[in-house]
Amino acid sequence: MKKADCIFCKLANGEIPTNSIYEDDDFKVILDAAPATEGHALILSKEHFDNLYEADDAVAAKIMPLAKKLAKHMKEKLHCDGVNVLQNNEEAAGQTVFHLHVHLIPRTTGDNAILEWNHLELSDEEMQSIRATLEYK
Amino acid sequence: MKKADCIFCKLANGEIPTNSIYEDDDFKVILDAAPATEGHALILSKEHFDNLYEADDAVAAKIMPLAKKLAKHMKEKLHCDGVNVLQNNEEAAGQTVFHLHVHLIPRTTGDNAILEWNHLELSDEEMQSIRATLEYK
Repeated sequence: MKKADCIFCKLANGEIPTNSIYEDDDFKVILDAAPATEGHALILSKEHFDNLYEADDAVAAKIMPLAKKLAKHMKEKLHCDGVNVLQNNEEAAGQTVFHLHVHLIPRTTGDNAILEWNHLELSDEEMQSIRATLEYK
Repeated sequence: MKKADCIFCKLANGEIPTNSIYEDDDFKVILDAAPATEGHALILSKEHFDNLYEADDAVAAKIMPLAKKLAKHMKEKLHCDGVNVLQNNEEAAGQTVFHLHVHLIPRTTGDNAILEWNHLELSDEEMQSIRATLEYK
């Protein structure tokens, strides 16, 4: 299902031209218009899901094998030193377009492009409390 | 196959105790010892692969459905506002342990935890050149 007025639905399904680098039955992969690095691409599902929470498992299952294939392709074509695979859910996590997409970000040693984070210092008790909260039963 | 002297092989296969929150035949999910946010977890494959490039497609296919299940679980248990799913390949991309793993990072609005990046300003010609290089044929 496509969603009316979803820009990524229009891009994924060819209603708006874009810089596509790959396409199959389930996905279109396009260059990010505001890239973190040269070659930064987005895997867009053709079907509309707001985010990963809503995705069909059958579609979700195809994402990482495709990311693998394209990450290796980026290595070959761009001679990059690494690749980030990033999928953000909700605004608090940096999602800006509410259509399932996965960032593929080619990295070069020392590019300082993204993805630094602070490390919390949690006590053993705090960690145990979090573990108990999150244990999946 | 496990790899000797791989810390994540030992954690994923129970040779070293850890704060595990989920386990199935293919993966163990543990709390990150140096978390970006409270609840930051790592999906570890039980089989050793250095990174996503090396992963079996059958294992890779199970990652996103599991990330989906656990992201929803984090929403329910932590009442977080979003979740990042992040998989880094090679040191240039921030990979520090060379065993396939996927970060699940619960986010709270305004936590400023991670994942800001600069946006390159590329000309149309530059974008076309990158597109031509990356087109998957």
